[in-house]
Amino acid sequence: MIALTGVRPTGELHLGNYFGALKQLITLQRDYNIYFFVADLHALTTYVFQENLSEVSETLVASIIALGLDPTKNLIWTQSSVPEVCELMYLLSCLTGFQYLNKGHAFKSAKDTYKNPSVGLFLYPVLMAADIILYQSDVVPVGKDQQQHMEICRDLSEKLNKLIGSWIKVPQALILDEVAVVPGTDGRKMSKSYGNTIPIFADKDRILKIFKRISTDSTKLGRPIDLNNSVLGSYLKLTLGLESYRTLANACLEGKYGWGQVKEIAFEAFMKYFETARTKFLDLMRDRETIKEVISSGNEKARAIGSDFMRKFKKAIGLLSYV
Amino acid sequence: MIALTGVRPTGELHLGNYFGALKQLITLQRDYNIYFFVADLHALTTYVFQENLSEVSETLVASIIALGLDPTKNLIWTQSSVPEVCELMYLLSCLTGFQYLNKGHAFKSAKDTYKNPSVGLFLYPVLMAADIILYQSDVVPVGKDQQQHMEICRDLSEKLNKLIGSWIKVPQALILDEVAVVPGTDGRKMSKSYGNTIPIFADKDRILKIFKRISTDSTKLGRPIDLNNSVLGSYLKLTLGLESYRTLANACLEGKYGWGQVKEIAFEAFMKYFETARTKFLDLMRDRETIKEVISSGNEKARAIGSDFMRKFKKAIGLLSYV
Repeated sequence: MIALTGVRPTGELHLGNYFGALKQLITLQRDYNIYFFVADLHALTTYVFQENLSEVSETLVASIIALGLDPTKNLIWTQSSVPEVCELMYLLSCLTGFQYLNKGHAFKSAKDTYKNPSVGLFLYPVLMAADIILYQSDVVPVGKDQQQHMEICRDLSEKLNKLIGSWIKVPQALILDEVAVVPGTDGRKMSKSYGNTIPIFADKDRILKIFKRISTDSTKLGRPIDLNNSVLGSYLKLTLGLESYRTLANACLEGKYGWGQVKEIAFEAFMKYFETARTKFLDLMRDRETIKEVISSGNEKARAIGSDFMRKFKKAIGLLSYV
Repeated sequence: MIALTGVRPTGELHLGNYFGALKQLITLQRDYNIYFFVADLHALTTYVFQENLSEVSETLVASIIALGLDPTKNLIWTQSSVPEVCELMYLLSCLTGFQYLNKGHAFKSAKDTYKNPSVGLFLYPVLMAADIILYQSDVVPVGKDQQQHMEICRDLSEKLNKLIGSWIKVPQALILDEVAVVPGTDGRKMSKSYGNTIPIFADKDRILKIFKRISTDSTKLGRPIDLNNSVLGSYLKLTLGLESYRTLANACLEGKYGWGQVKEIAFEAFMKYFETARTKFLDLMRDRETIKEVISSGNEKARAIGSDFMRKFKKAIGLLSYV
């Protein structure tokens, strides 16, 4: 069974990425073959032409491996290395009503966010469907905000099956548990666009500075503080483990720690939680050739899967392919 | 210098196709290297998934060769055999404003024609730009109705040049002479959608029947008839040559011929005009392997051009391509 997911190469992975989705994804590798791609084509819809895209993509791959995705058991590749995904996207776009896509709520909200959205952004759900169908994915782990896109993809799979006989998999959404919505350092949702993230693989000093800047209430040292309703508490709950967290939270309620100390504890807990991953990440980044090889061999496999699918698919819809 | 053109494989070539565009295209091969592709991807925007598409495409290639396009000097291929054209289309779509495309008059009129236009139809000008840019065409012979699309393509070429340095050709529209708008057998513009065409390569009997059905006025035999204002006259002007046409038209004005006779003359002139082409077409269709080979070797060359371009282009915009 294949579980497919793509992550845009738009910057450093942060605590919100990890506890919001990646941790669960990595757990899925016990039961699924994970197809993980660097969504560099999707990234172009909002960030047109990053000069250092290769570097960002390689860093993303190093990060996901460092966090536990086993590259020998799963497939890791860059979306843009398989032109067939665009080919399938175009064919699917001929089966998608313009009004149907124009009315989708994701694009509606994109039109609010971006003054002048691109056609590429409009095509996002169709490209997503092509990603899923091309690699014949069984499940797609998504957040609730992606449910409508999954419906578009399922509709398209069903349409294809009606047209060419039922051999296209109709994928299932695997709705990710939303228990762990991670607050940013300013209390809003953690998101790159708010500038309130804690990057997992940044320098120790930079992370320490970020922890020190986290906003707290103005309780004086020696007075009780309530971790449960604090940003730091959210981080500690995730990185300390529940038992240690409870002990600490009780001590805080007894006034044993001030916010300054809690920040240090949270920083240490963060560093300890990600210690193995951070070490592995540094090793991988020192040996960039290994990362390039992982991507290169993944690209080759993905391309083979994609072109096999398209050969079969194009034959089924009557398109010539003599080459 | 490359002149690029695509024709949709949506049926038999007819008199309107020939005198409206193809005749001029074939003349261009003296001065240009003609890149002629079967626009099977464009065809999907309105005719989703024709089962006999391969056959229709092969017939189109046989037709254009029979009409005089030299396959040894020019490039003939099927659009769908080069996935890179969809890849480039997607990248261009990220540089195209949604509103800009949505307001284009071609799509506006498409929305009037089709109750539920597809996303593929919306993408038509972007795919057309990808066709032109991928093969680095110098000129594109188009009718006046395509001028806006050519502007979109030129805009995109210029945007690319700004982004990645000026090595993308900015193509020129070569507006085709519109002297020869050919009327259909019912007097409206000749068009497949009106069912008023005269197919060039159909059986002799079928063509004769079509000529016999052409509507005329009800002038009685022996009375003067005016060829200049008749559908048959338009055909005769094109197929007889101007001198013979004038002699005939004068004789008609003197009442020497009735409409029945004029129909026969027009039929004979048509058959004579296309005699060489029709013979060549039949030869080619008898030897289908030759056509397949022309397409196959053209596809291979087009694919090489397309993938070379995309390799260079993707490198320039920072997209990884390790494979």
